[in-house]
Amino acid sequence: MSFNVKILGCGSALPTTYRNATAQVVTHNGQMYLVDCAEATQVVMRRHGVRFGGLNHIFISHLHGDHFFGLFGLLSSLDLMGRKGDIYIHCPARLQLMLESQYSPIIVNELGYALHFVPLLPDGLSLTMDSKHVQVYSFPLNHRIATWGFLFREKQAQRNIVKECIERYNLKIAEIVAIKNGSDLTLEDGTVIPNSELTIDPPKPRSYAFVSDTTKLDSVIEYVSGVDVLYHEATYDNSYEKRASETFHCTAGQAAQVARDAGVGRLVIGHFSGRYDSVSLLERQAREIFPNTVAAKDGMVFDVI
Amino acid sequence: MSFNVKILGCGSALPTTYRNATAQVVTHNGQMYLVDCAEATQVVMRRHGVRFGGLNHIFISHLHGDHFFGLFGLLSSLDLMGRKGDIYIHCPARLQLMLESQYSPIIVNELGYALHFVPLLPDGLSLTMDSKHVQVYSFPLNHRIATWGFLFREKQAQRNIVKECIERYNLKIAEIVAIKNGSDLTLEDGTVIPNSELTIDPPKPRSYAFVSDTTKLDSVIEYVSGVDVLYHEATYDNSYEKRASETFHCTAGQAAQVARDAGVGRLVIGHFSGRYDSVSLLERQAREIFPNTVAAKDGMVFDVI
Repeated sequence: MSFNVKILGCGSALPTTYRNATAQVVTHNGQMYLVDCAEATQVVMRRHGVRFGGLNHIFISHLHGDHFFGLFGLLSSLDLMGRKGDIYIHCPARLQLMLESQYSPIIVNELGYALHFVPLLPDGLSLTMDSKHVQVYSFPLNHRIATWGFLFREKQAQRNIVKECIERYNLKIAEIVAIKNGSDLTLEDGTVIPNSELTIDPPKPRSYAFVSDTTKLDSVIEYVSGVDVLYHEATYDNSYEKRASETFHCTAGQAAQVARDAGVGRLVIGHFSGRYDSVSLLERQAREIFPNTVAAKDGMVFDVI
Repeated sequence: MSFNVKILGCGSALPTTYRNATAQVVTHNGQMYLVDCAEATQVVMRRHGVRFGGLNHIFISHLHGDHFFGLFGLLSSLDLMGRKGDIYIHCPARLQLMLESQYSPIIVNELGYALHFVPLLPDGLSLTMDSKHVQVYSFPLNHRIATWGFLFREKQAQRNIVKECIERYNLKIAEIVAIKNGSDLTLEDGTVIPNSELTIDPPKPRSYAFVSDTTKLDSVIEYVSGVDVLYHEATYDNSYEKRASETFHCTAGQAAQVARDAGVGRLVIGHFSGRYDSVSLLERQAREIFPNTVAAKDGMVFDVI
């Protein structure tokens, strides 16, 4: 089952020639989830061949322009392209008021599809999307305005039945379903075959967390504990720790500390200040604390494994 | 005195890999005027090395997203870059209500500079900006919502004094000013030297008109009569005349008819539908009616002469 992330933009407030502001597409089992939608996201999606049709859920972390100004154009273009299916926007409640106000930049009730707003909740880890194979949780960050991170967590798959058992015991559909759910098998003569002899463990559920923008937070360490891949903002290199704190952002070192303390598998740093043409310094600083770190780059795709 | 236009985007509603939606920079004597501001305009400006600091006036033709969705990001970025000087936005009145509403995407009274809105007037040719060397007029078009075109017209320069006359008649500053304004010179002995012997004609004032989006209009022919360069929308090739009419747009042939009937110097067609990868067909169709036509291209710069 595919599970990957495509970076559409890993810059911060000021877009540069090299970096768009924040947007990324999480793809799981063919379903696409857009996380943040900076200006020009629809242009970047087109450039990178991202299918617009596969998009049903959009997650907006906060209402700073570099995280949502591309939403107006994207929603308009989906309409122009004849979109009919509903779109769900998981976002700060104010975005709904903005888009439904009489002075909204787009007139949502004239779109050819329905928009549903799912307001993000202020406290703790909250389930905001629940699909067949994956769940998305939001969790609060600490930025200048209300801001959330997102955790994508695969559901535990059913146990895998050992194929030769199906023939050997001439299993019926109902029995297979029960066994996949963990039941033992009782034969006609009363013999009980334990589930452990009939099945093998399913793959371990994978998880991905997106954290941008925030100061370094202990609660985040808890929310993203043990994820396979953590995307964490690292707006500044370590020498700007004071500026990072004043603007409610993180340094590369702080992002790496979160990754280390949360015991994640891999760290991807992003949301780089426009002052950096190259971010190799930030990557180096993060690796000193958490070696399995990579700096994001627009267009980069990484698997969640 | 420089007078040129840089095309930042010549596409229509759906941005493509090749074309951004509508935006262009008119530069006159070092002053920059932004005409329309589609999504990603700030990114394209950066890519093409357009100085943000030289921008004081922005003209927005109408409130379809492909003409103004880039404004939010541009205005935010100007603030982040430390802009202090006032910005004037010449636009439909509704844009002011949108940006000053409590649910605006940007909070205008938190910007570090003042925004002034100059609402476009519904009737005829209206002076919307008057500077030392150039005037900008707006004029109504016929689109699905209230839409305006813009006419940039150089002011008539003063007459050029023939330099050797200054020494020959030992002219004082006040006399030079009067002669440049057209006065004759009366010598001490009462001899009158006519202005025509003291001066030569100044350069003919140049003019540029921007027309997007609209059906073909007789009133436009009148407003843009005799301009040196006309930018006119040509969303479709001639075979889509019915569709052009239904969507309140023009074909290439109709744009060329306007140019011909208005007796303009040169025609630049733009605002191309996303269905065209190449617009050479549209350029050919326009040239059949008005030979001095060129199809716009993102990044193209043309002089107004």
